[in-house]
Amino acid sequence: MAQPLNPQVAGLRSSAIRDLLALTRAPGVLSLAGGLPAVDTFPADRLADLIGGVLRTDAATGLQYGPTEGEPRLRAWIAGYESARAVAAPGAGAEPRADVDPGRVVVTSGSQQALDLLARTLVRPGDTVVVEEPAYLGGLQALAAAGARLEPVRTDADGLDVDALADRLGAGLRPVAVYTVATFQNPTGAVLSRPRRERLATLAAQYELTVIEDDPYAEIRFGTEVLPPVRAFDTGGHVVALGSFSKTVAPGLRVGWAVLPERLVGPVTRLKQAADLQTGSLGQAAVGELVADAAWWAAHLDDVRAAYAGRARALATALGEVFGERLQLNAPRGGMFLWGRFTDGTATGPLLAAALARGVAFVPGAEFFVGTPDPASLRLSFATLGVDDLAEAARRLGRAHRDLAQLAGQPGGQLAGSRSASS
Amino acid sequence: MAQPLNPQVAGLRSSAIRDLLALTRAPGVLSLAGGLPAVDTFPADRLADLIGGVLRTDAATGLQYGPTEGEPRLRAWIAGYESARAVAAPGAGAEPRADVDPGRVVVTSGSQQALDLLARTLVRPGDTVVVEEPAYLGGLQALAAAGARLEPVRTDADGLDVDALADRLGAGLRPVAVYTVATFQNPTGAVLSRPRRERLATLAAQYELTVIEDDPYAEIRFGTEVLPPVRAFDTGGHVVALGSFSKTVAPGLRVGWAVLPERLVGPVTRLKQAADLQTGSLGQAAVGELVADAAWWAAHLDDVRAAYAGRARALATALGEVFGERLQLNAPRGGMFLWGRFTDGTATGPLLAAALARGVAFVPGAEFFVGTPDPASLRLSFATLGVDDLAEAARRLGRAHRDLAQLAGQPGGQLAGSRSASS
Repeated sequence: MAQPLNPQVAGLRSSAIRDLLALTRAPGVLSLAGGLPAVDTFPADRLADLIGGVLRTDAATGLQYGPTEGEPRLRAWIAGYESARAVAAPGAGAEPRADVDPGRVVVTSGSQQALDLLARTLVRPGDTVVVEEPAYLGGLQALAAAGARLEPVRTDADGLDVDALADRLGAGLRPVAVYTVATFQNPTGAVLSRPRRERLATLAAQYELTVIEDDPYAEIRFGTEVLPPVRAFDTGGHVVALGSFSKTVAPGLRVGWAVLPERLVGPVTRLKQAADLQTGSLGQAAVGELVADAAWWAAHLDDVRAAYAGRARALATALGEVFGERLQLNAPRGGMFLWGRFTDGTATGPLLAAALARGVAFVPGAEFFVGTPDPASLRLSFATLGVDDLAEAARRLGRAHRDLAQLAGQPGGQLAGSRSASS
Repeated sequence: MAQPLNPQVAGLRSSAIRDLLALTRAPGVLSLAGGLPAVDTFPADRLADLIGGVLRTDAATGLQYGPTEGEPRLRAWIAGYESARAVAAPGAGAEPRADVDPGRVVVTSGSQQALDLLARTLVRPGDTVVVEEPAYLGGLQALAAAGARLEPVRTDADGLDVDALADRLGAGLRPVAVYTVATFQNPTGAVLSRPRRERLATLAAQYELTVIEDDPYAEIRFGTEVLPPVRAFDTGGHVVALGSFSKTVAPGLRVGWAVLPERLVGPVTRLKQAADLQTGSLGQAAVGELVADAAWWAAHLDDVRAAYAGRARALATALGEVFGERLQLNAPRGGMFLWGRFTDGTATGPLLAAALARGVAFVPGAEFFVGTPDPASLRLSFATLGVDDLAEAARRLGRAHRDLAQLAGQPGGQLAGSRSASS
């Protein structure tokens, strides 16, 4: 038959989550499993007006080929945004750096494409890349496709354990890159502390590695605290920052970006040209029009934050009522996910089967681990359901938890992974 | 400093055409250099209406994440289209196969992305891929980024010289793939003859290689003849067919596709998920709405064909008046390009400098060669200028040709590459 495929591609796993998401589209299932943002936060009517205006007055801008690096106006806006946020919250320690030249911005087809381009540029097959444990699956997939050997480093409530990373580097680990979602991480929701951000940038310079800072949730914050990105502490071109309009506008437009050190601008742009020539002109034009009205944009972000914050609170409250101390939850400060851990020995793999039978879905935490998984953990998205459905989903999860406990209590019960007491 | 980059990416050349295109944006330059389709063929107003309708009535369809493989409705339409065209012109020889299941269609971010995904899937670094000489540069770039060793095989007026390919295979060449633009090729405009299509499919099966049939110009035909794609003669899953809406609708939407053999559907889909999760939802929805009205779509294609055919004729006629026998032109049967060859010894590299000084641009043919280039060849795009501008561009090219001849006749004339007689 045919010749063998490139093993890096042939070896890519189909994400279990992808199969799971198909299951959760069954009628009647309340899904906390997805990674989708909330449709009701998308500014659909305004986009219709703005896109209509572009198409009727300047078809070339919306429909013709444009520069591989992205539309100049959008690149300039992104550079201004990235410059401003680097100094948004000056604090103790090193001074964050503000300046991002538009020439360092490349607009990508979502930040997922930026990840893929960076992985292909930085990684020679077999090179080591440090990833968070647990980590965003799409990031792991892009790195695996580039032939990276993934080296997990533990995380805690303050994000990536940078001390543990420093120990590993000191002991001889030589990664070409560290991949991190530093703010409102997927799946844990954790925020990398400011001292860790600074130290991570310092380690990158010391060990000549590149930090890939993937930051799609930065604007979905529930409080007032704003930390400078890791990039703001970069002194020698060792941090790449990725951003996205997928959560602040809509993912279907596929508009994200990378802020690159000078030395990577040429290689990444040439690779993007080979990969898809350019990001869609219409999506770039639409987003460019949206953000051009600064007052509207600020008000829109406030609305989006309020919507997610309300849902996060509703789900956390409902889960607290149902499970009490048996389920440890992170305190959601932003993003789209709650991360939980059962303290009563419940294994979330078996729990998922019971949950689907009760009409609720989530993702077992084990899916997000490269190394030894935590079988008691789970990720719960609060993004897409209304507050009443979130409360009902929590109650159904409680029923599933009881079902599982009863099964485990039966002689010959096959769900031996669960040691939960009946409630 | 930083660690070395992946050599496959670090080694990508910046396309000389890209730099050239920047030059041709100077005011007053009439450009025959670009590869851009004609903005006046884009159905901008209709797109504005249809997109407005989608966004106001079903925001999720246009703006939310969707399946990696593409929108089911669009995939079904593409499968139907590909099935129908395979039997559009039954002729002598093997019977073309009609059936394309929608499950074999993956929607991509332009056909360029399909090329990139296929290159990454099929090519292990160092593997050989046969390419046409001359060939589409974006194809060469995608293959080079995947680490392919490019092996050029000559073309003539009937496209890829499949006999020459057979000889090379017989002599031991073992490529994993053959990359071809079989219909209205870029840059030559050539059409692979029907016997060659059939033989190419047979060779693919015999030598267990994959033909990547890139087909973005198929619908831009100026006559009535329709050849079945190479894919239609594939009996064992050895041909991948790529298509695009970039020339029939607009490139800024970034919607293309691949029709894959069963064995490649899984790997390519998983790689696409890592590469950009999915193609833009709004572009897919817009194109899906456009093609759903079959009568409108047929009339639109007729309009697009008429626009390009008129321009092709205008440029060919004007060039004939200016150069006569000194410039051999292909007879344009479709697509966006004329390919020419000076018979008077004019070298098109030096001619370009003279042409820019006279306010006209084209691409020297040498840009499109992997092996030894033909210095007398050039590519002329008739797509974007009106017929009057095309005639004026031909006259300017004539003046540049005279300038060059005079320079060459001067003692110490630095453009020694040109041996043309003065006119």
